[in-house]
Order: sequence, then structure tokens, then C-alpha cells
Amino acid sequence: MPRSKAEPSDRSKPGTDFLQLDLSQAPDGGLIGYLTERLRAAIADGRLPMGSRVPPGRVLAEELRVSRGVVTEAYRRLIEDGQLAGRGRAGTFVVAAPIAPPTGVRHAEPRPAHTDFAVAPGHDVFDLLRASPARIDLTPGVPDLAAFPRGGWLRAERRVLDALDPADFGYGDPRGAPPFRRAVADWLARNRGIRVDADDVVIVTGVAQALDLITRVLMDDGIGEIAVEDPGSLGVRQHLASRRLRTPPIPVDAAGLRVDLLRESGAPAVALTPAHQFPTGVVLDGGRRRELVKWADENRGFILEDDYDAEHRYDRPPVPAVQALLPDRVFYAGSVSKTLAPALRVGWLIAPPSHREAMVVAKRYADLGNAVLPQLVLTELMESGELERHLRTLRRRHRRRRDAMIEAIHAHLPQARIHGAAAGLHLTITFDADFRDTDVATRALEHGVKTQPLSWHYQLPNEPGLVLGYAASPPADLARGIALIREAVLTVEGAGPRRGSS
Amino acid sequence: MPRSKAEPSDRSKPGTDFLQLDLSQAPDGGLIGYLTERLRAAIADGRLPMGSRVPPGRVLAEELRVSRGVVTEAYRRLIEDGQLAGRGRAGTFVVAAPIAPPTGVRHAEPRPAHTDFAVAPGHDVFDLLRASPARIDLTPGVPDLAAFPRGGWLRAERRVLDALDPADFGYGDPRGAPPFRRAVADWLARNRGIRVDADDVVIVTGVAQALDLITRVLMDDGIGEIAVEDPGSLGVRQHLASRRLRTPPIPVDAAGLRVDLLRESGAPAVALTPAHQFPTGVVLDGGRRRELVKWADENRGFILEDDYDAEHRYDRPPVPAVQALLPDRVFYAGSVSKTLAPALRVGWLIAPPSHREAMVVAKRYADLGNAVLPQLVLTELMESGELERHLRTLRRRHRRRRDAMIEAIHAHLPQARIHGAAAGLHLTITFDADFRDTDVATRALEHGVKTQPLSWHYQLPNEPGLVLGYAASPPADLARGIALIREAVLTVEGAGPRRGSS
Repeated sequence: MPRSKAEPSDRSKPGTDFLQLDLSQAPDGGLIGYLTERLRAAIADGRLPMGSRVPPGRVLAEELRVSRGVVTEAYRRLIEDGQLAGRGRAGTFVVAAPIAPPTGVRHAEPRPAHTDFAVAPGHDVFDLLRASPARIDLTPGVPDLAAFPRGGWLRAERRVLDALDPADFGYGDPRGAPPFRRAVADWLARNRGIRVDADDVVIVTGVAQALDLITRVLMDDGIGEIAVEDPGSLGVRQHLASRRLRTPPIPVDAAGLRVDLLRESGAPAVALTPAHQFPTGVVLDGGRRRELVKWADENRGFILEDDYDAEHRYDRPPVPAVQALLPDRVFYAGSVSKTLAPALRVGWLIAPPSHREAMVVAKRYADLGNAVLPQLVLTELMESGELERHLRTLRRRHRRRRDAMIEAIHAHLPQARIHGAAAGLHLTITFDADFRDTDVATRALEHGVKTQPLSWHYQLPNEPGLVLGYAASPPADLARGIALIREAVLTVEGAGPRRGSS
Repeated sequence: MPRSKAEPSDRSKPGTDFLQLDLSQAPDGGLIGYLTERLRAAIADGRLPMGSRVPPGRVLAEELRVSRGVVTEAYRRLIEDGQLAGRGRAGTFVVAAPIAPPTGVRHAEPRPAHTDFAVAPGHDVFDLLRASPARIDLTPGVPDLAAFPRGGWLRAERRVLDALDPADFGYGDPRGAPPFRRAVADWLARNRGIRVDADDVVIVTGVAQALDLITRVLMDDGIGEIAVEDPGSLGVRQHLASRRLRTPPIPVDAAGLRVDLLRESGAPAVALTPAHQFPTGVVLDGGRRRELVKWADENRGFILEDDYDAEHRYDRPPVPAVQALLPDRVFYAGSVSKTLAPALRVGWLIAPPSHREAMVVAKRYADLGNAVLPQLVLTELMESGELERHLRTLRRRHRRRRDAMIEAIHAHLPQARIHGAAAGLHLTITFDADFRDTDVATRALEHGVKTQPLSWHYQLPNEPGLVLGYAASPPADLARGIALIREAVLTVEGAGPRRGSS
């Protein structure tokens, strides 16, 4: 029978008044694992609620009469799993419940509908998928959000607010705050090989807005179609289509975009993801880069370079931006969505010199410029090296998560081929089979696992597959998620006709 | 000779080591005024630099051997003037230097050009005006920015970051964070008489973005022109024109928009500022409101209601939003730009039910939704009553500043007529004369005073005038600014032909 916390006699049995922990039940030599599991259970059933602070390691160690190292290591594992997070001197907090319905009290509200993978995706497909309840979210596109440096952000914001001139609370330069534009120019020079003056950077609210401003400016030039990669981002294609732009699909192979087919298409512009193609993860190789540059030069073509997760790579050298090769023809866009958090809505855009003025006009009328405080906070984080340190931490965590997902795929889905795992926040698996991947995604969602069917991102015929984000989920969720996807695949394979196995 | 702070003997003469204050020179009975002036001088010449903390009142009072009330009152006057700001327990800080070139170290950089009032205003006219150096900025459109509640903002942000679910750092609902939409719906019900469900609010980055989304949606409906008030905001007209919308001018008289002329114009939509017409300050009266509703009903016309500074009124009862009369035909937009700060870039938009879904699609493709942290911070400030308290403080300060400006106009520009001073953040003056107000604005800028010529905001022939913001400047600057405008008017009157005086 659980004891009430109010009974003072509870204090006599160390730890039991706090979490009903009985370490005498721990297996021999498995104290750390046992404690980790008990804490995980306490988080899952609400005894340690979201947002609560766990006791300092020293205190819990004393109560449990174990060495402090045992508690420290258990906390470390839960931090690694994304269930706890350290907030400096404030202590360590519960930040996510494991394998449980989304808590998100702040956002809880009735939702009108859920993802239906059987129908063609509409404008709101990503909103519906986000709102679909699932215990494990393997949709791609976000970094480890539990790692967001809350303490560092707040400290930087305090410094910014302490120093800010009142006039800076007024309307500002539509291109963004000058110190941030300088910091971004430095960041791009250091990390992406891009040489650009701070005055030529336009701060935007992310790659989506960048795309919107670029299309506005190009459409004013009379451009009516922008070629896209196939497979390529469904979101980008929907966005372009919503502006009534045609989006001829250009196939991607192991070397990246088929520039020869781009040339054949006659399209005056192309949107692509050269550093880590979405969703295949292919890198645009040297030969293709040269071909692309030649195409743009000869055809006065425009390149929209979406550098969406260039900062994340594990097993390969960095790939410089195409912008650095051909600044006169490239619109370059990046953001902090994959290095810090999409919810910040901060990114940057570099237009070719011919279109810089038009781009500033477009940004001005879109929203008069980004909010100032977050820009100055990010300036602090970039200039102090804190963002770079955060990125190194993220890379280590993401790499472990990627390895955990690959291991689980090898174990549960040996027939799947894995693509694009050398970098980024997601990988793609394909099946040599003739089931519909939307059916697999439907079954997986029924099993509590959210994924994106690969066919969403194709315009041309394709192999079935799934796009799987690993960066935002702890290793235990990744393993369980893949095991559940195996169930989904088995169900779908059992239901329909199959091609002979190769 | 000023003494060095390093000399210990200085401590023997109270205060002198700190600010070279000699209270024996204070006039009889004028201790507070003298101390205020000495502190002001210390801020002006850099002995108390921007961002520095002034000594706690108790400490300075002891050093100077005066009662604490003297110091408190001197600080209060400097806070009222916008030169000091209290930041809670952190103390009181220097936040603005009086009558000196803009400090703004953070934003200092070479600027390419300055405002030229002689040419027709281009897309970048407001940027150029903002970048033009001037000692006194009387351009309209911003509240008292020195009053921004930095401490309250930071405390609220700490609470938000402590409680945030990691998933909230991901991509969110393009309509905005649900708790903030609820807070905005409550705010609009309480302050603007608007009854709306939280789900029907779309959070945007300000009225500029609202206008952009509305025009997108209306243009998709085939609408090619949106009537505007005359005079009316140059910024709004430029924005609409940049989207290739025609903007037929509808005159404004003492009762507001001439709805009879709107009807004659045949325009399918009209953008207006019913609560405090920009720039005249006229309120759309009851009769005109009924006419407007009838027009929209009979013509299936759309009303774009820009509620830009509805929260600021001094000598008149509140005016409810037109949206509350006719929710089916009104696009309503508001923001925190005039209650807190334009630099936050947060506003809201309510579309008629017929266009709500299209509006969400437009917002999604524009930027995927606003940044989350500022929305949740604002939720805290709204729900805790802190924003309402801030608004009361602002109203008191703004009213005093308005009174100071009116007094200065009576003293220095008795020939000017004052318009729209019962509410808002600015007033407009007109002259029964035939000089060009752009010439006056040019001269005023040469004298170090930034204003907007009234003719910028007219499409039809008009009297010369100036639009003068008073909310962002301390009373001393307002008085000096108006005195310098008098000089500008005299120069211009002396140079050109004049109509006979009336």
C-alpha cells in the first residue's frame, strides 16, 4: 500500500516517502538500471509530474543510502532519454513523460480531425498529423527539443534587456537587427563557406517565409514555375502550388538532383536541398554541383538553396553551400529551426545582388521585419560560442539516437533499406514491396507511432517507404517505435498482394 | 576641479565623489528641481552612462544628507521623462540620454541615404525617416518605449520557460498558441466589445502582416481595389499598391469616413481606422457606423478594421469595434505595437466566418505561424493583469505628454489647428497657409526634429500640416521640438508666397 507523504514515520525508511523506492528489490549489480527504471515509472504514472524538480542527487543518494554516482548516472540516462533536463543552478526537472499520451496541457483542445493517410494530403496535412495523438512521434524535421538551452536563453535575454536602447523597442530595419545580421554573416562564413556582407542578409521567420518572399520576387519577374526535387519536400511543393506556381518534378539519384533532366525541363528556377537532400539524405556531389552552376549560368536560371539541416552531420565531411559557388544566381535560406527550435521562427535569406532590394521590399510588406528581442538573444548565443557548444551537444545526442534507430531497423525491419543516415535529423527507409506506404503509416499511427509515408514527398511513381525522424525521441522510444512499425508492415503485407521477394 | 574617485578623501564631502554634486548651490526651496537637473546633466555628459544603475535612493540621500523623498522625487521625474527606468529589485537604470544624438550603439552603422521630403515617398520612406539623425523624434506611431516592462517581461518568460513542454518548441498551430488565442479573445471581449471564440483568432506579426494576409485572400476572391481613407495612412496605401491593388481615396470629415462617397466609388472593400482615424484622430460616429454597416450588408462589401491604437484614450468614452456590429463582413486587426512595443511584432486578426479557413492557409504559407515564446509571455502578462496595469501607467504618461505638446503648440504655433488629441499617441496640426508641409518637415529635420508631413497621408488636395507623435518623447523634448518647428514654419513662410491671413 503506498504510504501517504503526510505520515512522519515515512521518513524513517529512506526514500519510500518520496517515490516508494525499495532498493532491496534491485537485482545484484543493477542498482543504476533499477533506479533509472523506477524513476522512469514515477514520471510515467505522474508521481513525478511534468515540470517538477527531482531531488538534488546528493539528497536522493543520502535518502537511498547509495553512492552519489548511482543517482548521478540514473539522472544522466534520463536526461539522455529526454525525460529530465538540467537547468543549471535551478536543478533538474521533469520535461517529458515517457510513452504516454501527449501531456501538452497548454495546447490541449478539441481537434476537428486527424490525419487520414488514405486521401491526398491537403493544405493542413502537417497540422493534422501534428494533432494526431500518438505515443511516439517519428515525424522528421525537429531536433532534440528537450535540449533547448532554456537557462542560456533566459540569461542572454536578461543581458539584452539590460542593455537595450528604448528606441530599439520601436519599428526597426525590415532586414533585421544589424548586430544579428553581422552575427549571421559570421556564422555563415564559419560554418557554410558563405562570404556575405551583413547588409546583404535579410532576417526572416524561417525557410517557409524565405520561400514565400523569393516566390513573390520571382513571380514579379514573370516566373511561373519552379522545379523541385523528386522525391522532395511535400511542404515546399504545396507552398509553391498555393502560389499557383507549377512544380515540375526532377528526379534525384545517388549523386543528387539530375541536372540533365532539369535542363530538359526548361524550368527557369529550381528549389533544392544540396547538403542533405530531403527526404533521401543524398549529397549533391561535385560533378552535379558543377553541372548545376553551368545550368544556372547558361540559362540565367535561379537556384533556391534550402540549407535546412546543414549543421548536422556525423560520418562525412562538411558540404559547402552552393551559394558560395554562384552567389549571383542563388537564393540561400537557413534557420535556427534545426539547431535550436522551430518555435523560435527565425531564419535568414541571402538573395542574389540583382534581387536584394526587391527582397527587402518584400520583407517590409510581409511583416515590417522580425521581432527584435529574439534576434539580439541569438546574437548573444552566437557571439558567446554558446550556440556552437549547444550544437556539439546536439550532434552527440542525435548521433546516439540515429545509431539506436539504425540498430532497431536492423533488428526489426531487416528487409528495409536505409537512406541518408550520415547527416541530418531523419533517415528514410524503403521497401522492395508493393504495399502502399500510406497503409503502413495508417497502421503505425493506430499502433501509436507517427511517421511520414515516403510517397507524400513524391510526384513520380516510387517505392514504398517511410521518413523517420530520430532526433526528437529518446533511444527507448526509437526502439519501441520501430518494433511497432514492424507490426504495421506485417499487417499490411498480410492484407494485400505482394511482389516476389528479391 | 573634479576630484578623482580614487581619492579616499573625497568620501568626506558627501556626494561629490559620485556626481560632483554640491547641494549648497541649490536655490532655496528648490532642492528637488536642482537635484533633477544635476542628474539630467550627468546623464547628458556621460558621467551616468546609458545602461548604468543609479545609486539606490536611500544611499544617495544619505550621501547628500537630504531626505530620501527628495531623491525619490528627482528619480520619479527622470523616470517620467524617460531618462531613467525602474527594473524592480535590479534597481533604477539610465535608459535614454536627453537631447543628444541617438546613442543606439547596437544599431550604429553607416546609412546610405536620408529622408528627402521633396520627392514622392518611396517604399523605403519610413526606413529612411527612421534612419535620419535627429535629436527629437516626433514621428507618430509608437508608445512610450522607455516604459516597456523589462522586468515583468523577463519574469513572465522565466515562468513560461519553466513550464514549457519540449514539444512546444516544435512546429505549432499556424493560428498561434492556443493559450494566447484564448487570452486575446478575452482581451478583445473586455476591451473592444468583440465576441469571438479563441479558435477564430489568428495570431499574426502585426497589422502589416494582417493586411498582407487579408489582401491575399481578397485578391483570391477577385477583388482588385480597396478604398482607403483620405487622409489615411501612407504606409497602408503603399502596402496595398505594392500588391497592385487600386486604392480609391474616400474623404474623411468630422464624423469620419464619408460612407456616401464610398458607396459612389463602387469599391468592394474599404480599409479604415474607426476608433481613432489616422491621421486626423476623428471617431467614426454612430450615424456613419450605421451607414457603413448598411453599405457592407447591401453591397456584400468588406471592411478592413485597423484598430491600431484603440486602447489609448483620454477625454472620451471608449468606442467599440465595428467588428462587433457586423462580424460577417469585417476583417479586424490589432496588435501590441501601441500598448507594449512595435519591436515585439505580435498582433491578431479576426476574419469573417466565410474567410477563416482561407486566412489560416494564408498564415501557414506566410510563415507557419508566430514564434511561441513571446505569445506565451504575453499570455502571462494579459492573464495576470500586468498588461492592463502597464496600460494604465502608459495612459497617465501619454496624457501628460499630450498636454505638454498641446501647451507648446498654443505657445509657439498659435496659428495651427490641432486635431485628434482626445485619444491615441499622436495629434495632427494643420495650417491655413499655402506653404508645402514637406518644406516645413525638411526644415524641421534640419533643426533636429523628425515629423511626418500631413500631405504624405493624402491622395486628394489638402491643407498643409504635420503629424506629431507625443507618446515616445519626454515633455521637455516635446516643448523644444515644437519650438524648433516654429522656426521651421517661420523660415518656410518667409521663403514662399502666402495666402492672406484669415
